[in-house]
Amino acid sequence: MSIHLDSRSPEQYRVLLAKYDTWMFDCDGVLWSGDRLIDGAVEVLDILRRESAYKSLSPLLWTVDVLLCHTKELICKISRKNYKKKFDDLGIEASVDEVFGSAYAAAVYISSVMKLPKDKKVYIIGMSGLEEELTNEGVAFVGGTDPADNVLKPPSHGIPPDPSIGAVLVGLDTSINYYKLSKAFRYLHSNPSCAFLATNEDSTFPSDKGLLPGAGAVLSPLTTALGPSRPVTSIGKPSGLMLDCIKAKHNFDPARTIMVGDRLNTDIQFGKNGGLATLLVLTGVTAEENLTGPDASSIVPDYVTQSIGDLRIIKGA
Amino acid sequence: MSIHLDSRSPEQYRVLLAKYDTWMFDCDGVLWSGDRLIDGAVEVLDILRRESAYKSLSPLLWTVDVLLCHTKELICKISRKNYKKKFDDLGIEASVDEVFGSAYAAAVYISSVMKLPKDKKVYIIGMSGLEEELTNEGVAFVGGTDPADNVLKPPSHGIPPDPSIGAVLVGLDTSINYYKLSKAFRYLHSNPSCAFLATNEDSTFPSDKGLLPGAGAVLSPLTTALGPSRPVTSIGKPSGLMLDCIKAKHNFDPARTIMVGDRLNTDIQFGKNGGLATLLVLTGVTAEENLTGPDASSIVPDYVTQSIGDLRIIKGA
Repeated sequence: MSIHLDSRSPEQYRVLLAKYDTWMFDCDGVLWSGDRLIDGAVEVLDILRRESAYKSLSPLLWTVDVLLCHTKELICKISRKNYKKKFDDLGIEASVDEVFGSAYAAAVYISSVMKLPKDKKVYIIGMSGLEEELTNEGVAFVGGTDPADNVLKPPSHGIPPDPSIGAVLVGLDTSINYYKLSKAFRYLHSNPSCAFLATNEDSTFPSDKGLLPGAGAVLSPLTTALGPSRPVTSIGKPSGLMLDCIKAKHNFDPARTIMVGDRLNTDIQFGKNGGLATLLVLTGVTAEENLTGPDASSIVPDYVTQSIGDLRIIKGA
Repeated sequence: MSIHLDSRSPEQYRVLLAKYDTWMFDCDGVLWSGDRLIDGAVEVLDILRRESAYKSLSPLLWTVDVLLCHTKELICKISRKNYKKKFDDLGIEASVDEVFGSAYAAAVYISSVMKLPKDKKVYIIGMSGLEEELTNEGVAFVGGTDPADNVLKPPSHGIPPDPSIGAVLVGLDTSINYYKLSKAFRYLHSNPSCAFLATNEDSTFPSDKGLLPGAGAVLSPLTTALGPSRPVTSIGKPSGLMLDCIKAKHNFDPARTIMVGDRLNTDIQFGKNGGLATLLVLTGVTAEENLTGPDASSIVPDYVTQSIGDLRIIKGA
């Protein structure tokens, strides 16, 4: 059973502050919704930073899946540099080192966890943000935004196997096409030792143009064509690999860490998989009725509060 | 248990000829393999036509999923006219009316079975062969090969719902892109009465350039993004809808019809779903070892023979 926090009772929130030194946040639906800040979010984040200031641990960490920007294109780059710009635009204090997107986590996974040999490269289905993170981590790649792969129709020549491709990595790609899918399929199908990775498996994502197919949808032609004998390794939430990447970069105690999110099957499951406490907010995709009744989710957060802004009540505590 | 026909025993094949008036054939892996005729296939088809000549029923029917042609493009149109050309090229006697591809069956399904109202149209993800079949059946459509939808990147404007779209139909499309997927998703997601149809769900198809993602792979981003509450209706084998379309055009007795194919989960299952007898040949994707042992398929054909050419033994019977 979740503890439903009472926004009129400062005591309950003070207990949270005493129990947890490190706060991890999902962003969209928690701190902001599209381009609109959640009421009170900046104030609460300031309180949390101030309260944690005397501790040596990392007080605040951000996990982001897809960040939406208003550019001329349907959606924008999802590198940490772009996330940082979003934080700045909304007036939220954050450093790039505190931000963990699934693209960054995938780059860290390839360079530091699976340790891709230096003579191998990654074939990517994804956008420039993914390329930026791979470049920063020193991972060689092909595909992605390369004009040779971004074609309206596949070329007439066949696709030779390429043993130098050590991994295929799939993220959200609004320039997905049959040629890229065929190349990724060929590399994976012809070479059992080629790793099959995805940034995340979100089936949709909410854009300012409405709901659109997500990274999990872009990935599905490959999982369908390859069949169950070739499972994908997904790096983003709720996978524990994302937390391994955060642990590789930050010093914190999981037993004194709380994950705040709006999605049960990604954010809250991610916290549970990593042994973190979990706090669900109802300003995003999850509503009160998803928590009770016969159709309630089996994923139960430790705490529930209406909005991150509710924590303002501890101000001056 | 299947009856394994003995290619040295003409009696067994004569029994088949006496029991079944109408023969339905899958083509690739049965009559031909790529551009190579299966040894004896033309001779056997001539025998079957001659033996059935005195009967008033349709002696031979062909069901085709994907037909491969050698063109400048990776794969070609899959209309019945193109199938007919393939038959002609290989010296097989066949008329267009005898050929049922899943694109044609989808067009017949929309016009004659679901009876799409005349003020509604179909949004298609598919190629010119699919468009040709829809045009022939008088079905209005948008999308497909329209240059406005075949773009490298989605345009910056949003996708408005379109209540005039009465169905989304997905087939193999080697020009699949994120914009087409987003449009199809929007039409289906915003309108519960919009039908969700697929020509077939083959995960891969064998091309002369090697194995490639099939119509089922092109379809999967939509099934993934829409989730299980929005199931797709698949028209091609093994669906019974394909047989309904054949029945709408031909006079035959299912109890005296035999389906010949090389795939257990499409051809043989299709025959079983329709109450037809089934004959498996081993010149395609299924090998003897798929039929016995602990990993044997649960789909059991009535008869098994090495090759359609084995039926030559009844010549002059």
